[in-house]
Amino acid sequence: MTDHRGVPLLTARPSVVTVGADLFTRSLADQAVSVTPVDWRPPMPGTADHLARVLADPRRDEANRRAVGRVLASTPHLVDVRPASEALGLEPGQFRHAGPPIDWARASGPMRGALIGAMLFEGLADTPEEAEAHLAAGRADLDPCHHHRAVGPMAGVVSPSMWMFELEDTTHGTRAWCSLNEGLGKVLRYGAYGPEVVDRLRWMSAVLGPLLRDAVRAHGPVDIRAIIAQMLQMGDEGHNRNRAGTLMFLREILPELVAAQAPSSDVADAVRFVAGNDHFFLNLDMPACKLAMDAGRDEPGSTLVVAMARNGTDFGIQVSGTGDRWYTGPAQVPDGLYLGAYGPDDANPDIGDSAITETAGIGGFAMAAAPAIVKFVGGEVADALDATRRMYEITLAENPAYQVPVLDFRGTPTGIDVAKVVRTGILPQINTGIAGKVAGTGQVGAGLVTPPASCFTEAVAALAEAAPPV
Amino acid sequence: MTDHRGVPLLTARPSVVTVGADLFTRSLADQAVSVTPVDWRPPMPGTADHLARVLADPRRDEANRRAVGRVLASTPHLVDVRPASEALGLEPGQFRHAGPPIDWARASGPMRGALIGAMLFEGLADTPEEAEAHLAAGRADLDPCHHHRAVGPMAGVVSPSMWMFELEDTTHGTRAWCSLNEGLGKVLRYGAYGPEVVDRLRWMSAVLGPLLRDAVRAHGPVDIRAIIAQMLQMGDEGHNRNRAGTLMFLREILPELVAAQAPSSDVADAVRFVAGNDHFFLNLDMPACKLAMDAGRDEPGSTLVVAMARNGTDFGIQVSGTGDRWYTGPAQVPDGLYLGAYGPDDANPDIGDSAITETAGIGGFAMAAAPAIVKFVGGEVADALDATRRMYEITLAENPAYQVPVLDFRGTPTGIDVAKVVRTGILPQINTGIAGKVAGTGQVGAGLVTPPASCFTEAVAALAEAAPPV
Repeated sequence: MTDHRGVPLLTARPSVVTVGADLFTRSLADQAVSVTPVDWRPPMPGTADHLARVLADPRRDEANRRAVGRVLASTPHLVDVRPASEALGLEPGQFRHAGPPIDWARASGPMRGALIGAMLFEGLADTPEEAEAHLAAGRADLDPCHHHRAVGPMAGVVSPSMWMFELEDTTHGTRAWCSLNEGLGKVLRYGAYGPEVVDRLRWMSAVLGPLLRDAVRAHGPVDIRAIIAQMLQMGDEGHNRNRAGTLMFLREILPELVAAQAPSSDVADAVRFVAGNDHFFLNLDMPACKLAMDAGRDEPGSTLVVAMARNGTDFGIQVSGTGDRWYTGPAQVPDGLYLGAYGPDDANPDIGDSAITETAGIGGFAMAAAPAIVKFVGGEVADALDATRRMYEITLAENPAYQVPVLDFRGTPTGIDVAKVVRTGILPQINTGIAGKVAGTGQVGAGLVTPPASCFTEAVAALAEAAPPV
Repeated sequence: MTDHRGVPLLTARPSVVTVGADLFTRSLADQAVSVTPVDWRPPMPGTADHLARVLADPRRDEANRRAVGRVLASTPHLVDVRPASEALGLEPGQFRHAGPPIDWARASGPMRGALIGAMLFEGLADTPEEAEAHLAAGRADLDPCHHHRAVGPMAGVVSPSMWMFELEDTTHGTRAWCSLNEGLGKVLRYGAYGPEVVDRLRWMSAVLGPLLRDAVRAHGPVDIRAIIAQMLQMGDEGHNRNRAGTLMFLREILPELVAAQAPSSDVADAVRFVAGNDHFFLNLDMPACKLAMDAGRDEPGSTLVVAMARNGTDFGIQVSGTGDRWYTGPAQVPDGLYLGAYGPDDANPDIGDSAITETAGIGGFAMAAAPAIVKFVGGEVADALDATRRMYEITLAENPAYQVPVLDFRGTPTGIDVAKVVRTGILPQINTGIAGKVAGTGQVGAGLVTPPASCFTEAVAALAEAAPPV
C-alpha cells in the first residue's frame, strides 16, 4: 500500500498533517508519530461561489500589493492643532460622528448623549431636553467623520468649536483629523453630557487647544509613526493602552510647551491633563492609522479593508476595491471587564472609529506587544499573544515599522483581506472601550469584540459582482 | 519488579525524571513516555563540605525569610535632591566610587578617568596631568559609595559639588543616595573627562540640581517603587532600559517643574535634558534597590546577597549573614554590542554599582519584561525570557510588586541565595554598559556579564565557618 507519491504507507515512518478536531492529532502524537496540526477552518457558509470569483480575479494580487504597499509607505506627522470650524469647515449645527451613517432615530444611547452634549457645548440648546428635541426634529446635520477624512473614538462626535489634531501623510500629501482626547469616565465620547463634561470641553477649547497649537507650530511636524513604533516596544498596543505613546508625545512637545508665551499655571494644567490621561495619544494614532488606510483606498480588485467603524448601532467596513461603500451588520456587545458596579447589562454595543487602529495593524492586532492589557480588557496573557498570531492568517502584510519584540520583532499583521476573513472564518480582533447604553452614563468598561461576519460576506459578494467575468 | 513505592516497574506506565544530558530524555519521549526534564547541575567544584554546613545551619531558613521579607517590604521614595557635600557630608578632596574598595594603583582606566574628571570639576587640578599626579600621590580620599549608603553607576565617582537623589525607605526609615545621570557617550561615569564632560557637570550642579530639588520638594515624596512596577509593564528592565521609567518620573514632577520660580529657558533645558536621556531613571531605581537590599542586611545565618558591585578591577559581593565583608574576584569583560568602531579589545572589565538592580531582582533578572533590550545588549528574545526564568533557580522570593506580564505576571526573581548559586552553578545574570578601558574614552558598548564564581564560593566558605557546630 502506497500513498499518492508512491511512498509505502505501512512501512515508512509516517508524517501526518491534521486539520480540525485534535483527537486524531493526539492519538498520533501518543504513538510518537510526527504530526503537523494546521489551523484550517471551513469558509463562511454560503460564500463559496463569491469567494471563488474573488480569488480568481486576475487583478487581485497586484491590486492588494499596491494598496497595502501604500499603507506601509504612509508617514503620518502631526502638523497642526485647529478648531473643527477651520480644520473641517464645520458650521454651527453640523456634527460629525463615528461609524457608518446613522440618523437620530436609530442612534444608540451614547451617540445620542454625545450629540446632546455637543449641542449644549455649542450653545445650541440650554438643556438636555431642548437639545434632544432639536435633534429628534432633524435640526442637526449629521455625517460620519470617515466621510471627511476624520476619525473619532467612541461616539466620535465633533462640533465646530472642538479642537482637532491635524496630521499629514508626508509620503502621499494627504491630511486627516481627530479631536483631542478628554480622558476616561464621564466624557462626551462615552455619551456623558453633564456640566463637568461641557466645562472640560470649554477648557480644552480655550486653553489646551491653543497651547498645543503653539507648541506644535513651534516644534514643527511630529513624527507619529516613530512614536507608534516605539510604543509597541513599551507595552502599548495603541488602542486600549497608549501610556508610553502619551508620555513620548508629551516629551516631544514639552520644551516648546514650556517655552510657550502662556501663563505657567495654564502650562502646568495642560501638562497635568495630558500626563494624567494615559489615552491621550489614542487620538493621535487613530488619525495616523486613518492616513495609512486612506492611502490604500480605491484600488480596483483589491480585497483590502480600508475602514472598520461603528456608530453604536451598526458595524461597518469599507474595502479598497469598492470605493466608499459600507458593508454593515449589527454591532456586538464587547466581552470585557467592567468598572465599579457596572456589568454587561449596562453595555452599549460596540461604538467608535477607533477600530481604524486594528484596520492598520495595531490595537487588537498588536496585543502581543501589550501583554499587560489583559488586566484592562480581560483574558490571559497567552490570549494576547495568540490574538496577534491569529491575525497573520487574515492579513496581507507585516509592517516592518511596527515590530513586536516578544514575537522576535515580527512586524504587526497589517491589512485585513476580506477574502482571507471569509475563507478562514477568522474575524478581526478588536480591543475597545465599552460605553453605557443609557445616554449620559459614560464609560462602563473595556473589552474585546469582533465585527459581525456579514460585513465580510457582503463585501466579498460585492467584490465578486465587480470582478471581471471568468 | 517494583520501584521503591511498590509500583510495578515494567507493567505500569512509567513517569521519568531526567537530569543532565538529554539523550535519555529524547529516547524516552520518542517512545511516548512522559518525561520531566530537570535542569540539575553539579555544585561548584570543591564546595561540597562548605555547602553541607551552610545548608545544615538551623538558622538559615528563618534568617532568609526575615531578610528577604524586609527587602520586599521596602518602600523607596525620592524625598530630596541635594549636593553630595550636604547629603553625604563630603569634603573637598573626598571621593566616593563604585564597587568594593580600591586604590589608584589598581584602578582601571575608566575609574582613573572619572577621578581625574572629578578633580577637574572640583577645581582641585587645572589639567588632567596635574589631577593624575595628585591622585597617584595619594592626595585624594577614596571610599566605596556602598560604605556610605550610596550607589553610583559605572565608575560611580561622586565629589562634593555633585548633586544627589536622596531616597527614603518609608517602611524602614532608612535613606540612600545616588548621583544624577549625565546621559550616554562621553560622560564622567564611563571615564571621560574632557571639557564637555566638566561643563555638563557644572550645568547639572548650577541648574538641573536646584530645579529638581525645588520640584521634588514642592511635589512631596515620589513613590519610586510604583514607577519601577509600571516600567516593568512597559518594556524596561531597570538597568539597561529605563525609557518608560524616565518618562514616568518626568511626568510625575512635571507640573511642579513647570510651576517652579525659574527662567522658562532653564526649565525647557532641564526638561530637554531629562527627556533626552533614556537612562535618567537608572539613578533613581539604583538607590531604590540599594534601600531594599540594605533592609536585608545583617541577618545572622542568612545566605542572601545584599550587594553586588564592581570597581572595574574587582567584582565584589556582600552577604546578609556576614555583615560588611566583601567577597571579591576579577571583574569579567561583558559580552555585548559595541558602539561605532569599538570592539571587545576596547572594553574595560565590568564596572559599577548598578548591579544593585540585579541584586534586588530587576535589571538582568527582569529581562523577560524587556525583550526589546536584545537590540542593545545582544542575544535573542528567547534568551531574555530564559534569563529571567533561570534566575528563579537561585533566588529566595518572587516580588509581588514587580511583575513580568509576559510570564503571566509572575513576580521578578528576587534575593540571590549564595547557597543556591553554589549548589546549581548558575551565576547571576547582569545587564551592563561597557566602558572603554583607556581613561577618557567613555562608553564603548553594552552587554551581558556574570560575576566570577569565586565570590560565591568564598561567601559560602565564610558562612560555613560562621555556622554553629553541627
